[in-house]
Amino acid sequence: MPERTEAIIRPDVACRLVMNHATVRETMDMAAFVDACARRDLAGVSIWGEEIDRIGEDRAHRILKDSGLAVLGYNRAGPVIGAAGAQAASRLDAARREIERAARFGADHVMLFTGGLPAGDKDLGAHRARLGEMLAGLLDHARACGVGLALEPLHPMLCGDRTILTSLGDANDLCDRLGPGVGVVVDVYHVWWDARLEHEIARAGAAGRILGFHVNDWLVPTRDILRDRGMMGDGIIDLAGIWRQVRMAGFGGPVEVEIFSDAWAGREPDEVLDTAIERCRSIFAV
Amino acid sequence: MPERTEAIIRPDVACRLVMNHATVRETMDMAAFVDACARRDLAGVSIWGEEIDRIGEDRAHRILKDSGLAVLGYNRAGPVIGAAGAQAASRLDAARREIERAARFGADHVMLFTGGLPAGDKDLGAHRARLGEMLAGLLDHARACGVGLALEPLHPMLCGDRTILTSLGDANDLCDRLGPGVGVVVDVYHVWWDARLEHEIARAGAAGRILGFHVNDWLVPTRDILRDRGMMGDGIIDLAGIWRQVRMAGFGGPVEVEIFSDAWAGREPDEVLDTAIERCRSIFAV
Repeated sequence: MPERTEAIIRPDVACRLVMNHATVRETMDMAAFVDACARRDLAGVSIWGEEIDRIGEDRAHRILKDSGLAVLGYNRAGPVIGAAGAQAASRLDAARREIERAARFGADHVMLFTGGLPAGDKDLGAHRARLGEMLAGLLDHARACGVGLALEPLHPMLCGDRTILTSLGDANDLCDRLGPGVGVVVDVYHVWWDARLEHEIARAGAAGRILGFHVNDWLVPTRDILRDRGMMGDGIIDLAGIWRQVRMAGFGGPVEVEIFSDAWAGREPDEVLDTAIERCRSIFAV
Repeated sequence: MPERTEAIIRPDVACRLVMNHATVRETMDMAAFVDACARRDLAGVSIWGEEIDRIGEDRAHRILKDSGLAVLGYNRAGPVIGAAGAQAASRLDAARREIERAARFGADHVMLFTGGLPAGDKDLGAHRARLGEMLAGLLDHARACGVGLALEPLHPMLCGDRTILTSLGDANDLCDRLGPGVGVVVDVYHVWWDARLEHEIARAGAAGRILGFHVNDWLVPTRDILRDRGMMGDGIIDLAGIWRQVRMAGFGGPVEVEIFSDAWAGREPDEVLDTAIERCRSIFAV
């Protein structure tokens, strides 16, 4: 699978840096974002279904094609858990449609978002036990569509509310059970604290399943659990160290910037992009 | 070790509920707090060094003796990491003095607080590697003083800032290396999200090292990473389920209420205590 991530990046682009639209989506629509990334000669972009809807799918296809930018990640399929009966089936249908759209956009992988616990339901263990089975069906569909399915463990502070997948070890366990076609995205924000991180990165790398490496930073103090991620270098994560582990594990793909932050959403998007690129060049040498 | 926790609770007290002063420290000093707990016939209290200082150690001893309440946890020894040279030595000295005071108060165990990373230092792995050695000296002292040393993994969102110990598995690993006299405190807030929780609780129980079980709840949304814990039952943690796991692991000690919350700190302390007791009776049958 990492071969796909590597191959999708244009060989003529020296820079191994991908920008996720979430970083500037409050201030740039998808057309402006793709244009800004193409002007900076980035390796590719990661995109969001809602942003495609805002400008229309035909136009989104056209601007991406004209830009020559590769699409690394498509956000997103899910939530998949947290519903019962007909609503559960309709959630899986919606996830399948997102997988199809990711494939239409030639994305390397589609981000799978588990979602949180249903209101009033505290049985985290039961939902986790059923997750593999639920994903197996979606994985078959992703395989048929030719797009990778990416599991991204989220920070434990998002457990129950946004996700039930909270460590890279758990994501690796799920991938082991599911087989080829599914991989992991390592977002430093979500996993940096884990004493088993290096081991689990090596494990994911050995299985050839690292699909993406997302960067940002952990600020002290963190003032909001959803919208206070830091710019690379402004926080306390050993970004260069984790990047070394990911490279050592055999990952040859790009660094993807994904910053959810009210502070940065309030700044000029060109300044945000230039700052992010400059920080990535200095920290990751991309 | 769990025998100590069990033995310290007065056999004539039916209620197996301990109150941590942190729950009402903004509105009750230690004298008022101990009195309020004694009037409610609780099994014991967990106390704080700063609160002892506020009323004086002699008076604190006297009111505890008069109350007949057992002291379960003493807060706290640490931070121990994050300093260099003479400052590091003085931190260890301070921790030793706290251990001695915990012993003078007849506490079952003293809470060990690792502290976070020094400013500008991102090498979490190096600090974790040195933690065992640092704790070994303190553990010798705790053994000599006859007080248990309690490692409490904190939530990963506090990593780097407040702690470097972020999972029950890591705490168990440390205890394995350190040997007798050290145990763990399971605070539901910090560990509930962990897919390995049941396994690690069983492991801690099998080693006879569960020293305490702290309760509160995880609110959705959580508005502050330090001061927004919920009252038991107001959040999404499966409290009864985790309590079952802790009991199955052989823990015979009490349930300890510890709520850090600006919302509850703004309420009448008697109302807070009564609400907490009522919730514990209904959820944990204590």
